[in-house]
Amino acid sequence: MRFDVVGLGVSTVDLIFTVDELPGREVVQRAGESVIAGGGPVATALVTLARLGAATSMLDSIGSDFFGSFIQREFTAEGVDTGGLVVAQGRTTSKASILVRKSDGARAITFSPGDAPELTPDEVRVDIIRASKILHLNGRHWDACLHAARLAKEAGVLVSFDGGAHRYTNQHLSILPQVDICIAAHDYAAAFAGTEDVAQAAKALLEAGPCVVVVTQGAAGSRVFSKDGLDFQQQAHRVDRVVDTTGAGDAYHGAFLYGLARGFSLEASASFASAVAALNTRALGGRAALPSLAETEMFLQHPL
Amino acid sequence: MRFDVVGLGVSTVDLIFTVDELPGREVVQRAGESVIAGGGPVATALVTLARLGAATSMLDSIGSDFFGSFIQREFTAEGVDTGGLVVAQGRTTSKASILVRKSDGARAITFSPGDAPELTPDEVRVDIIRASKILHLNGRHWDACLHAARLAKEAGVLVSFDGGAHRYTNQHLSILPQVDICIAAHDYAAAFAGTEDVAQAAKALLEAGPCVVVVTQGAAGSRVFSKDGLDFQQQAHRVDRVVDTTGAGDAYHGAFLYGLARGFSLEASASFASAVAALNTRALGGRAALPSLAETEMFLQHPL
Repeated sequence: MRFDVVGLGVSTVDLIFTVDELPGREVVQRAGESVIAGGGPVATALVTLARLGAATSMLDSIGSDFFGSFIQREFTAEGVDTGGLVVAQGRTTSKASILVRKSDGARAITFSPGDAPELTPDEVRVDIIRASKILHLNGRHWDACLHAARLAKEAGVLVSFDGGAHRYTNQHLSILPQVDICIAAHDYAAAFAGTEDVAQAAKALLEAGPCVVVVTQGAAGSRVFSKDGLDFQQQAHRVDRVVDTTGAGDAYHGAFLYGLARGFSLEASASFASAVAALNTRALGGRAALPSLAETEMFLQHPL
Repeated sequence: MRFDVVGLGVSTVDLIFTVDELPGREVVQRAGESVIAGGGPVATALVTLARLGAATSMLDSIGSDFFGSFIQREFTAEGVDTGGLVVAQGRTTSKASILVRKSDGARAITFSPGDAPELTPDEVRVDIIRASKILHLNGRHWDACLHAARLAKEAGVLVSFDGGAHRYTNQHLSILPQVDICIAAHDYAAAFAGTEDVAQAAKALLEAGPCVVVVTQGAAGSRVFSKDGLDFQQQAHRVDRVVDTTGAGDAYHGAFLYGLARGFSLEASASFASAVAALNTRALGGRAALPSLAETEMFLQHPL
């Protein structure tokens, strides 16, 4: 089997409730809506790709508990290959309770990382990486992450890195030389480069390794840079009613990689990714409103 | 198959996290401990009975979602018969996020009732009720509840009613004549009788139908009354460290019924129930520390 994108990261389960108030005191309140949904940046990017029709595979270590089996079943239902998922017997899976205030979308997130061990380098499925066009990482399962990036480089597989908000550590300096495409939150790029200036931060990231750097800024859009001098701003697309921005960034990553895997230009990939991210905010949950390819194309032809 | 106790009520799934603070504002916090656990008063009473070695069966209507299958799996693992569980296809199951503050155990509960329809009278498994010694109810699935109580009376099956805190409604007046054993929270008894006085409230409940009335008061213990004039106070048992009082009342109900089903006196049943309830507070989650029969007997012989 061939894959467009193989991802290596941490899958989680989110239990999301909309509430009238974030509960700062002892209270019993009835939720408005509630959903249980898989989450995790790399995992959601892969589900985004799968909904668009791409072939994907997830490398991760999860627990053998109820949440672990939820993750497996959801990947299977979405068509994400689970051949590289390691199930740690007797261990628990990462999960979170997310309370979303109805009035303004403010979120109180309580997470529990579970006790499944990190994926180890020898658990990384070399054959799956070699069978892929792109490897997508975000620094989780660190040793396996470094190992997978090296394997990918050797095999001519493109390496994509998700620089998440509040996730930058100096450790990442050692992986950036292996990275081809780095899509980073503004916060990540600023922490890396020591400057809030987007262009300067992107330049510093390009010098560290990647050929393409994208800095994402939520509703303010994204800016794309390349080693050969490309620099353009992609506006965020608008939708009728934003319900929940959870997963919008992850959807952007997945859709951008979809564009690259299908040979889109950087401009087309960025516009496509922005559309998919916007469409994903229409429902509660990080993956609830991920669009199909046809839906995205329709939206791009007839934007609001 | 014969059952000691058949229960009719609503099963739920609780996702419980211990936290440093109840989140009254936008925050991302890491939980201390976390557990997923089945809940619901009648369901937890049945699991209490099952742990003690009694034969039990649950009548309920749940969704076909992931939480519904969790409930089925947990009942099966605990040995609670699920032959009378109706699974509503395409519907969701009742669930809750429970944040427990570490410093004082204060709880912020956000619940979502799901959209599985109520169990209907014609879905009540007559054969299971007839094969049981005791039917345990708490007023949920109201029409089915009334119907089941009538069936039980006709068949000479004892009827037990859990009067939960904040659960009293005038509707319950029509079921109390069918009830043999009513174990009520102090709040319920007070709401029913219009008086905070425990003895007066119990007298009013006894006049409405039951032969035995127990009024529970958490850490203040419980007081047992019977139509033939019995009236005694049962002290709450003490454990080394109370972690979570969720489910303590439900455990009391289950264990009290265990005593009755095994022919214990009311005094012995109350002491036994108090011990089981106390032991159940030793761990996070409404069922996590439910004891076996041997453990309970050991505790009663060697209390703190």
